[in-house]
Amino acid sequence: MPNAAYAELETRYRRIALLGETAAVLHWDTAAIMPDGGAPARAEQLAEMKAVIHGLATAPEVGHLIGEADAAGEALDDWQRANLREMERQWTKSTAVPEDLVVALSKACSACEAAWRTARPEADFGAVKPLLAEVLERTREMGRAKAEALGLSLYDALLDDYEPGGRAAEIDAVFGELERFLPEFLGQALEVQAARPEPVPPEGPFPVHIQKALGEKFMTALGFDFNHGRLDVSLHPFCGGTPDDIRITTRYDEADFTSSLMGVLHETGHALYERGLPAHWRRQPVGDSLGMSVHESQSLLIEMQVCRSRPFMEWAGPIMRDAFSGEGPAWETENLYRLYTKVKPDFIRVDADEVTYPAHVILRYRLERAMLDDDLSLDDLPAAWNDGMKELLGIVPPTDREGCLQDLHWYDGAWGYFPTYTLGAMTAAQLFAAAKDAEPAVEDGIATGDFAALMAWLRQHVHGKGRLLSTRELLAEATGRGLDPAVFEDHLKRRYLA
Amino acid sequence: MPNAAYAELETRYRRIALLGETAAVLHWDTAAIMPDGGAPARAEQLAEMKAVIHGLATAPEVGHLIGEADAAGEALDDWQRANLREMERQWTKSTAVPEDLVVALSKACSACEAAWRTARPEADFGAVKPLLAEVLERTREMGRAKAEALGLSLYDALLDDYEPGGRAAEIDAVFGELERFLPEFLGQALEVQAARPEPVPPEGPFPVHIQKALGEKFMTALGFDFNHGRLDVSLHPFCGGTPDDIRITTRYDEADFTSSLMGVLHETGHALYERGLPAHWRRQPVGDSLGMSVHESQSLLIEMQVCRSRPFMEWAGPIMRDAFSGEGPAWETENLYRLYTKVKPDFIRVDADEVTYPAHVILRYRLERAMLDDDLSLDDLPAAWNDGMKELLGIVPPTDREGCLQDLHWYDGAWGYFPTYTLGAMTAAQLFAAAKDAEPAVEDGIATGDFAALMAWLRQHVHGKGRLLSTRELLAEATGRGLDPAVFEDHLKRRYLA
Repeated sequence: MPNAAYAELETRYRRIALLGETAAVLHWDTAAIMPDGGAPARAEQLAEMKAVIHGLATAPEVGHLIGEADAAGEALDDWQRANLREMERQWTKSTAVPEDLVVALSKACSACEAAWRTARPEADFGAVKPLLAEVLERTREMGRAKAEALGLSLYDALLDDYEPGGRAAEIDAVFGELERFLPEFLGQALEVQAARPEPVPPEGPFPVHIQKALGEKFMTALGFDFNHGRLDVSLHPFCGGTPDDIRITTRYDEADFTSSLMGVLHETGHALYERGLPAHWRRQPVGDSLGMSVHESQSLLIEMQVCRSRPFMEWAGPIMRDAFSGEGPAWETENLYRLYTKVKPDFIRVDADEVTYPAHVILRYRLERAMLDDDLSLDDLPAAWNDGMKELLGIVPPTDREGCLQDLHWYDGAWGYFPTYTLGAMTAAQLFAAAKDAEPAVEDGIATGDFAALMAWLRQHVHGKGRLLSTRELLAEATGRGLDPAVFEDHLKRRYLA
Repeated sequence: MPNAAYAELETRYRRIALLGETAAVLHWDTAAIMPDGGAPARAEQLAEMKAVIHGLATAPEVGHLIGEADAAGEALDDWQRANLREMERQWTKSTAVPEDLVVALSKACSACEAAWRTARPEADFGAVKPLLAEVLERTREMGRAKAEALGLSLYDALLDDYEPGGRAAEIDAVFGELERFLPEFLGQALEVQAARPEPVPPEGPFPVHIQKALGEKFMTALGFDFNHGRLDVSLHPFCGGTPDDIRITTRYDEADFTSSLMGVLHETGHALYERGLPAHWRRQPVGDSLGMSVHESQSLLIEMQVCRSRPFMEWAGPIMRDAFSGEGPAWETENLYRLYTKVKPDFIRVDADEVTYPAHVILRYRLERAMLDDDLSLDDLPAAWNDGMKELLGIVPPTDREGCLQDLHWYDGAWGYFPTYTLGAMTAAQLFAAAKDAEPAVEDGIATGDFAALMAWLRQHVHGKGRLLSTRELLAEATGRGLDPAVFEDHLKRRYLA
């Protein structure tokens, strides 16, 4: 007997997904293209779209249909059952939250984000604080509503939006291990580094159009299809758009091409994931990307595991040199490799190396939990930030610009997001190790710019799975075990102590 | 007593308008930015958005609310009453058409438009004819449904989508006058022109970045606010976006800057209209732009009345020359003016001068009425087109590429649109004459690049009116009379016979 209720659900979720795609294009447009004066109207458009989607996702018929489809569930195959499970998950979360709270939070975020854009360069935390307080309060309301519906703690309910099935208790365990490992390791890595010659940065200027062409060349080599995507400029690099039209952005500095180029490669990892999602399940919940830790694992696998490796630099270094007609020792492969793997405790998360990066995340994770629990007031955030930096990395930001104002996340309502960066870094190490074990061509291809074997493995074990499996199941199937910080630590030891 | 039904209608139409703004951004993105491979997904997004909007616009509650608001209408002010009238108009038209016909027509247009894109360069009308037949049949169905609901003829019902309140009988009258006037006038204008030296085109190349900067300079002078808009590139220039983020496009030819530059000024006219719509009534039906004849009047007022005038060229010519570091007689004001007002019967409507343009429109108007009435079969369209060109302009297109395949309109379902171009040209002449009469600074400012008086007059008498008045009422209030071809004819005589 065909499951008519299930079929009707697919139709309804297809509409929701198409409106979501539209919103994704608007988000990209906002960051990459929109003139400043368009911001208030754009905020209205996005808020209304969110309200319409919320209305569709919480229509009482959807609940009834899910019940009916469940009751006749034996007629469904694995993918359909997983799809129905994801629908239930979305239904439970959406219906937990009233539409006016969705709209209020969306507007609070738009207002706070706009204020943050001026407060950050001016290092004026006070200017944005009241708006951040509003975001925090609405986020708490939203989190509490979801927590009640899901039977979770407030933090786990927020985390679940970014990391489905993720739990603070598990994060505490793996972060605890990193907190044990990293301080001593950092000292050792810095010691090893100090014994070697200091890497020399190539001298510019590096014209933007050459940087762009170079980025496109590497993107294409990795498998990015420009018939289904673009590379543009935005203040904060990101990967947006939709699986069939995936858009990454970067920003260029004519005095230093290295940072922008690696940013492009990072976003390309995100883009390849989106593009590799199961086309047959496009616009169904099960066809969507998994949580942010898997998403970040794909960007960090490309950036940290592949592109900052010595074999990659053997292939890519001469291409970089030729692109800029570079000469001299700065363009030697070994120098470029050292440059791209330099460890240096610093203030800015997005510029951090992979050894110090977890400290930035752990700080934010601690602080956001404390703020949500009301154990830390916004008045005390700047000082708590600076104290944390001193404790974790031994440095203190000169102003809040390099401190608690540096990241957009909290100001734009992304609470519970930060830990996924470091979960992603560990997942990337574990997936890459498994891919290399399974298929020698994965590692061999890197030094010749042939990423086909790696991409095939990722398509099969990660991208093409969509949401068929949970993050935990996917990692277990692909690597034979749960998330294990030891694999990440081994990677760091091999790269920085050898 | 406050009119609660009316207030609820405002909320509902606001949502419809916001989704419409979203669709407008997607349309711009499709034409200006989207990679080719994104097209199928974009078509799905836009079709779904259309269906969602249609659903909101035809919800039975809207009909009930309109009835209630009408009954309590004495509590409404002029703008609110006009808003309610526009809501009723939209409601009547939307509910006249079943959703499956909306979808069938949309799909027929997508298929036909795609076929046209290859048929046109290949001059292969036969290849697209069956798809055009489907579009025509569905358009007839749609038109009949609306005609019945509105108590109009089939053609008037289609025309009403582009020109609210427009009637074929009135078009027949004004076009009849032009058909009487233009043939003899064209002969006279060509004679006058032949007695003068042939204008010399400046020699390029004209780098794209300089063309763009020049366009932006003139746009800014006219009043375009780049904080609320953009200038980009697309294959077919247009004005898109939303009033708070209005985006015009052009295409550049490095061998000839003149055509692109005038295209930019034309689209700027459209943009200034959208930007000047009453902000207080944003996202309500009464706050929208009036029909296409008024829209086109705003682009043609800027392009034809202002920017192709001798005073404008006195100001703009030296700026053009300096931008390209031009030298010699080609850059003299008089030469540029002659170049920009050259009359030449030719095959392509979009390249036509203002003297021959009406003939292109009259031909299409005759043919589309005959096809809709089944007095002309698609088999006979190419020959009928060529016969018409011979009769009206004395020339015969070498192939259907320069004939009945040249314009997208019919292939994309825009039947009843063409006459608005020439209605717009006449309206532009009439509005500009009235503005000059009312305010001497309008004309005086042009030669010095000061358009403030003109813009103030347009804001007051056209832009800021939204849909408060009908097209007929707006023209009467602004110019003291109905549409009068004599004003347009006077303009032509002064410019081409003097």
